[in-house]
Amino acid sequence: MALDDLKALVFDVFGTMVDWRGGVAREAAPFLARQGRGDVDPALFADAWRRLYSPAMEEVRSGRRPFTRLDVLHRENLEAILPEFGLDPAQVAAAELDELTLAWHRLDPWADVVAGLARLKSRYIIAPLSNGNIVLMLNLAKRAGLPWDAILGAEVSRAYKPTPEAYLRTVEVLAMRPEEVCLVAAHNGDLAAARKCGLRTAFVPRPTEHGAGQTSDLAPDQDWDVTARDFGELAGKLGL
Amino acid sequence: MALDDLKALVFDVFGTMVDWRGGVAREAAPFLARQGRGDVDPALFADAWRRLYSPAMEEVRSGRRPFTRLDVLHRENLEAILPEFGLDPAQVAAAELDELTLAWHRLDPWADVVAGLARLKSRYIIAPLSNGNIVLMLNLAKRAGLPWDAILGAEVSRAYKPTPEAYLRTVEVLAMRPEEVCLVAAHNGDLAAARKCGLRTAFVPRPTEHGAGQTSDLAPDQDWDVTARDFGELAGKLGL
Repeated sequence: MALDDLKALVFDVFGTMVDWRGGVAREAAPFLARQGRGDVDPALFADAWRRLYSPAMEEVRSGRRPFTRLDVLHRENLEAILPEFGLDPAQVAAAELDELTLAWHRLDPWADVVAGLARLKSRYIIAPLSNGNIVLMLNLAKRAGLPWDAILGAEVSRAYKPTPEAYLRTVEVLAMRPEEVCLVAAHNGDLAAARKCGLRTAFVPRPTEHGAGQTSDLAPDQDWDVTARDFGELAGKLGL
Repeated sequence: MALDDLKALVFDVFGTMVDWRGGVAREAAPFLARQGRGDVDPALFADAWRRLYSPAMEEVRSGRRPFTRLDVLHRENLEAILPEFGLDPAQVAAAELDELTLAWHRLDPWADVVAGLARLKSRYIIAPLSNGNIVLMLNLAKRAGLPWDAILGAEVSRAYKPTPEAYLRTVEVLAMRPEEVCLVAAHNGDLAAARKCGLRTAFVPRPTEHGAGQTSDLAPDQDWDVTARDFGELAGKLGL
C-alpha cells in the first residue's frame, strides 16, 4: 500500500467513532418525560436536532457569521426544534437545556474504536478532525478512554468541514505535507473534501449511524486509499 | 484548601515539566562538533538560544508581527545565535538547522512528572498551557509519555504568555470560569499573570532549570494557592 510516508491519522468523530443518535436519544428520553412528552421517540428527537447541524455551520462556512463553536450551535438548535415536539423554549428552564446540550459530550464509541485506536497510536499521531469544539471532544475522549495525542478540528482551524481550510490548516498545524495525513471517516463527502486537499483517505462505514433503515454511506463511492469494516481491520490493513 | 471547584490543571512546560537546557545541549553537542566547534559548551549554546525566546515572542505580543508559531521563532533564533559561536548561518546546511530546531520536540521530563500527571489526570482535565506550538507539544508528549487530555496553549489561543489573552482564551476554550482552572508553573511571573486573570496558581520550583547556579524562581514570591516541591507532592496536596 502506498501509505509508507503516512505520519498522522485524523478522525471524523460523530458517526465514525461515536453513536451520536443513540447517545442523544438516551439523554433526551428523561428530558422529554420531564416535559410531559414521554410519548415522543427520543431517536426522532435526536434526528431533528442533528438535522439543524449542517445548516447552522453553513452560516459560519458562508461567512455570514463569525466562527462559533459547536456547543453554542447545538444549544441554539435545541431551542429551535422544541416547537416541533410541542414544547415552548421559553417554558423550559435554561439549565435543563444547557444540561441536555452536554449530551453531545457523553456519546459512546462503537465497540471496535478504543482497541483499534490504541493499535493505531502505536505508530501514528492520532487526533480528531471533527466539527466538535475542543472541550466537547475532550469530554467525549475522557469519558470513553480515547487516547488522543492532541485535539485538532474546527476550533483549532477556525473552519468547519468540509471547507478546504478545515483540512489544510490541520495539516499545517501538524507541520506535515497533506499526503502524510489520512482522514478516517464514515462519510464519503468528508473523504472527498479531504482528498481534494491532498490528504489520504480511509473509509470505515457505520451502517447504523442513522438507525436500522440507513440508506447513505453504506459503501465507498470512490477508491479510497483504505476501506475497512471497523477500526480493528483498519489497523490490520495498515500493518499493525 | 479552597480548591474544591477546580476542574482543570494547565501547565507551563519548558522548565516546569521538561529540562529544555539539558535536552537542547544534548542535541547541540554533536551539531557543534560537526561544525568544528566541539570546544563550545553546549549548555551555553542552549542558554544563548533560549535568551532570544522572549524577545522573539515580544514581536508578536506587541502586535508588530502576526502570530507566528514557536517552531518558526526557534528556527530564526538559531540562525541568529550562530555568529556568537563563530558560525556563519549561510555556511550551515538548512537541513541541519531544521533538524536541530526539532531538539525542542525531544526534551526529557523531570523524573517526577509522568507519575504525577497520571495521578492528577484521575480527577482533573490536564493540558499544557505553553508557548510551544501544538506539534511541538504533541511530539514532546508522545516521546515522554505525557498523558494530556488536550493540547492547549499559544497556538490555540493565538496569544503568547504572559498576555491576558493567553490565559483567558484557554479558560474560554475549556468553557469554565477562571477559578475552575489552575496554572502549574515553575515561574513566578507566569503565575502572577495567570492570577491577574482569575486563575488558580500552583508553584513547583525547578531549581536546576538554568543549571547549578540558578538564582531565579527558587522560591514562591506570592502566596500561590499551592506550592509543592514536585508533581508527586502537588498531587498529594490536592488530595490524590
